Amino acid sequence: MAGTSAPSASADASANGSHAAAEAPVGAPTNPMATALLTDQYQFSMAYAYWKAGKHADQAVFDLYFRKNPFGGEFTVFAGLEECVKFIANFRFTEDDISFLQSVMPMCEGAFFDYLREIDCSDVEVYAIPEGSVVFPKVPLIRVEGPVAVVQLLETPFVNLINYASLVTTNAARHRHVAGKSKVLLEFGLRRAQGPDGAISASKYCFMGGFDATSNVLAGNLFGIPLRGTHSHAFVSSYMSLDDIPDKSLKSKDGSRCFHLVPSSYFKFLVGFQVADSLCGVFGETNQSELAAFASYALAFPSNFLALDTYDVMRSGIPNFCAVALALHDLGYKASGIRLDSGDLAYLSIEARKVFCAIEKDFNVPGFGKMIITASNDLNEETIDALNKQGHEVDAFGIGTYLVTCYSQAALGCVFKLVEINSKPRIKLSEDVAKYVSIPCKKRCFRLYGKEGYPLVDIMIRESEPTPKAGERILCRHPFIESKRAYVVPQHVEELLQCYWPGKSNKPRAELPSLEKIRSRCMQQLEKLRPDHIRRLNPTPYKVSVSAKLYDFIHYLWLNEAPVGELQ
Amino acid sequence: MAGTSAPSASADASANGSHAAAEAPVGAPTNPMATALLTDQYQFSMAYAYWKAGKHADQAVFDLYFRKNPFGGEFTVFAGLEECVKFIANFRFTEDDISFLQSVMPMCEGAFFDYLREIDCSDVEVYAIPEGSVVFPKVPLIRVEGPVAVVQLLETPFVNLINYASLVTTNAARHRHVAGKSKVLLEFGLRRAQGPDGAISASKYCFMGGFDATSNVLAGNLFGIPLRGTHSHAFVSSYMSLDDIPDKSLKSKDGSRCFHLVPSSYFKFLVGFQVADSLCGVFGETNQSELAAFASYALAFPSNFLALDTYDVMRSGIPNFCAVALALHDLGYKASGIRLDSGDLAYLSIEARKVFCAIEKDFNVPGFGKMIITASNDLNEETIDALNKQGHEVDAFGIGTYLVTCYSQAALGCVFKLVEINSKPRIKLSEDVAKYVSIPCKKRCFRLYGKEGYPLVDIMIRESEPTPKAGERILCRHPFIESKRAYVVPQHVEELLQCYWPGKSNKPRAELPSLEKIRSRCMQQLEKLRPDHIRRLNPTPYKVSVSAKLYDFIHYLWLNEAPVGELQ
Repeated sequence: MAGTSAPSASADASANGSHAAAEAPVGAPTNPMATALLTDQYQFSMAYAYWKAGKHADQAVFDLYFRKNPFGGEFTVFAGLEECVKFIANFRFTEDDISFLQSVMPMCEGAFFDYLREIDCSDVEVYAIPEGSVVFPKVPLIRVEGPVAVVQLLETPFVNLINYASLVTTNAARHRHVAGKSKVLLEFGLRRAQGPDGAISASKYCFMGGFDATSNVLAGNLFGIPLRGTHSHAFVSSYMSLDDIPDKSLKSKDGSRCFHLVPSSYFKFLVGFQVADSLCGVFGETNQSELAAFASYALAFPSNFLALDTYDVMRSGIPNFCAVALALHDLGYKASGIRLDSGDLAYLSIEARKVFCAIEKDFNVPGFGKMIITASNDLNEETIDALNKQGHEVDAFGIGTYLVTCYSQAALGCVFKLVEINSKPRIKLSEDVAKYVSIPCKKRCFRLYGKEGYPLVDIMIRESEPTPKAGERILCRHPFIESKRAYVVPQHVEELLQCYWPGKSNKPRAELPSLEKIRSRCMQQLEKLRPDHIRRLNPTPYKVSVSAKLYDFIHYLWLNEAPVGELQ
Repeated sequence: MAGTSAPSASADASANGSHAAAEAPVGAPTNPMATALLTDQYQFSMAYAYWKAGKHADQAVFDLYFRKNPFGGEFTVFAGLEECVKFIANFRFTEDDISFLQSVMPMCEGAFFDYLREIDCSDVEVYAIPEGSVVFPKVPLIRVEGPVAVVQLLETPFVNLINYASLVTTNAARHRHVAGKSKVLLEFGLRRAQGPDGAISASKYCFMGGFDATSNVLAGNLFGIPLRGTHSHAFVSSYMSLDDIPDKSLKSKDGSRCFHLVPSSYFKFLVGFQVADSLCGVFGETNQSELAAFASYALAFPSNFLALDTYDVMRSGIPNFCAVALALHDLGYKASGIRLDSGDLAYLSIEARKVFCAIEKDFNVPGFGKMIITASNDLNEETIDALNKQGHEVDAFGIGTYLVTCYSQAALGCVFKLVEINSKPRIKLSEDVAKYVSIPCKKRCFRLYGKEGYPLVDIMIRESEPTPKAGERILCRHPFIESKRAYVVPQHVEELLQCYWPGKSNKPRAELPSLEKIRSRCMQQLEKLRPDHIRRLNPTPYKVSVSAKLYDFIHYLWLNEAPVGELQ
């Protein structure tokens, strides 16, 4: 299969020195299916038409960008870059690929396939904003330069690798924002994502966007993301009663004693519990499957006892949990907490906390009141926001479906547009100016920071223009609307696009940082953003501008390229 | 990496004869990442707790099912089964997997990892409804039997592999239904799916659900799905004018003549075009980039000329296309058609058809009026329905974002519930009866057909009950509501669950059919369904029932298992 050849292709690329870029080897894409065939058929049709017209080596510049922030917000986190760089480092057609292409394009001349056999990305240069950066509409996230036929072949995989990655990272960052810094966020989306790799991508990028851990073991293995999990309802219902546990003995933590875990502690606990909370009066009626399952789980994980409350929480789950937790305590262990997976999470978490605090006091169990309460069950940004407004005692949120499917907006809509060919700037015109007109030219992009350290505006300039400098007065213009303009005197200027794949040039290749570092960058960038850009309700749009020269040039092209009568 | 070992694990499984099932070898999963580590952490926690309690080999029966049809509809297409079977055929932990698990579960005894080293799916049996079948809520799509610890480990990957597959197949089937049988449906979702494998799954399952082709070349290679594509806007804007094409000569189809393709035909055409449609009066003003790109594309694909209209369709795209198409015609070629990607698709398709028909008549070009008109641009079920209501002349729809992301409902919500352990039936109770109570017992499931050949009702029975027979009067009861019941005398009875993985039993293994066959099954099943179940507006729910015996047993368990006061 094509996928399995990726690692060796990678080794070749770095070994044969076909491009100056390969100082440090770039690994294979995470997904072995991210091979050169992973593109749209029309990229091959176009490659052939370019080749037939002798245009395939024309030097093209493409920008990858998006037009609108997702989820009704005013920011996006850029993600997926490392996978794109790995993709081009390994970009080659195998003989099997070529045979397949010949079979589906029998009308093409044989020499075209010889051309495909030869191509790699040694003539391609890739510039990008560092992964994990906060980014905004219209500003190129990636600029790809190189032979037009090759760069077109990269369009689809690049958009594929960036689109969902950036979307789900942004979604995770929004969940982090609404949950607050002190909460633990767990990604539980494996079973709801688009197949194995959708899930692995989701786990990686949710961690990048600020989650603390995942349930996905393979993602933990691939990326070093911390793993979390309790048990399921099935575990509970697989037990009938305590009789299902043949050996209930547990050594105390210090090894000095051995104890039969459950029944004694359960009865001991009952009495105290009635003192603690007179509302929970129905004892002896707790679910026996649940009690047995909790006990069994505690025997397996005495130092990490975390129980899923799945039956009636206050009448069964909490009493059962406390019984087992107290028994563990008597043996020197500390239970971890509970997971609430149904019902009114605000109310139940508050009631559970009351019980835990009462037990801490009544039984003199220091720390029992601080038991971790995890909530799950179809959570999303809105429900966490609603929980915050109601008040709750949840310490950790387990989030799946809404997070990984990006339920409220399932696609970002990245585009990949030609902005220059053979040094001639190109513009895409459209009747809907604000939405579809592209910003022409090979550009440099800068973020201008104000005195308070907040970013003020992003500005795009033509490559030939001088670099904007801190302390200088810079005219920032809206790319399309004449009246929108402002002078900015930045305290600090940051160039956004860095070289991640220098092709045959001698430019140094920017580092591909570890996932942890990208995650930190994301957190830091979000903290640096003015809070009104990031708030959930009516956020302020962050301004994206062009230089006066680029503005004039856009409008010059516009007048000269638009067919008469096309634009109003 | 774990993924790369899958193919060899597969070879082992079929070579060493460790299970009677392996008459014919089952291949590796499509995605090399679908390995045994692709599961939730809590499955390993539970496996350990089962193992500690000596319960790991308890014989469990789990049902995989969903609770509600997606997209506001009343049917679902079951998909993903083949990948599940391939998953279990290759289910094994490698030494790398074990080392990783030891590192993240240091609290577990070493002997547990020896146990994990030994397990595979030779003790597991899998029964399922054939892939591509129309299915309904509550009825098990898959029943998995085997040692509880092993079957639990399968939960997450099975749900992952079924959930999106069934959702997107259903979405595709809905698009097919609204578009009608005569239209060509093209899946263009690669750049909007959840990474490489999300896209590959989308292409596979959209084809299964009734699409005709995909743009995704790798999916074409992996599954033999027909490929389609034109060219992009970037291709158009990479040309400035006809001067960009150094060699415009084209041999006639019969090889007898050679001709310079564009300019002459363009002028010849102009005159006729003014006759054909006086509305399109602005000639000589067509976009020259576009004309050059069309000409270049036609020179490359004279027998497959399909042009993307991206500038003003009526003033530029259609005249340019017709100019090139007529020139091709003069050389004996037949142009394929156009793709409309913006604007009012109903109006533009009708106007384009008028022009094509006028040209057929005025220039005496037989078949020109039948030029294929493809539409794309954020299409979905609703927009196709709206186009149908307005009237249109579109022959083919290219659908991406809304199709592959399942925008209107991004997850199906399959669950995997324990229904029996060590031959003891288990029920999951919930305060929300209709939604969350599971149907206990190892069950057999049947579809009862009426005289007209339509399926009437699905019925679940206990395994010990006699098989329902055609011509017999069968009482079908709603699983939870006492008053809902009906006698049915079926014309034909179909058993739904077949054995796809017999484990150590001697049952014959049902065939895994080709994708084409599964697609045909899906089409046939949808045709057999009563039209009111499938219609978009207020579809009638299809009835799912239980036998009288199973009904009584559910309610017996319910009374005995529910803690007092839990259910109202």
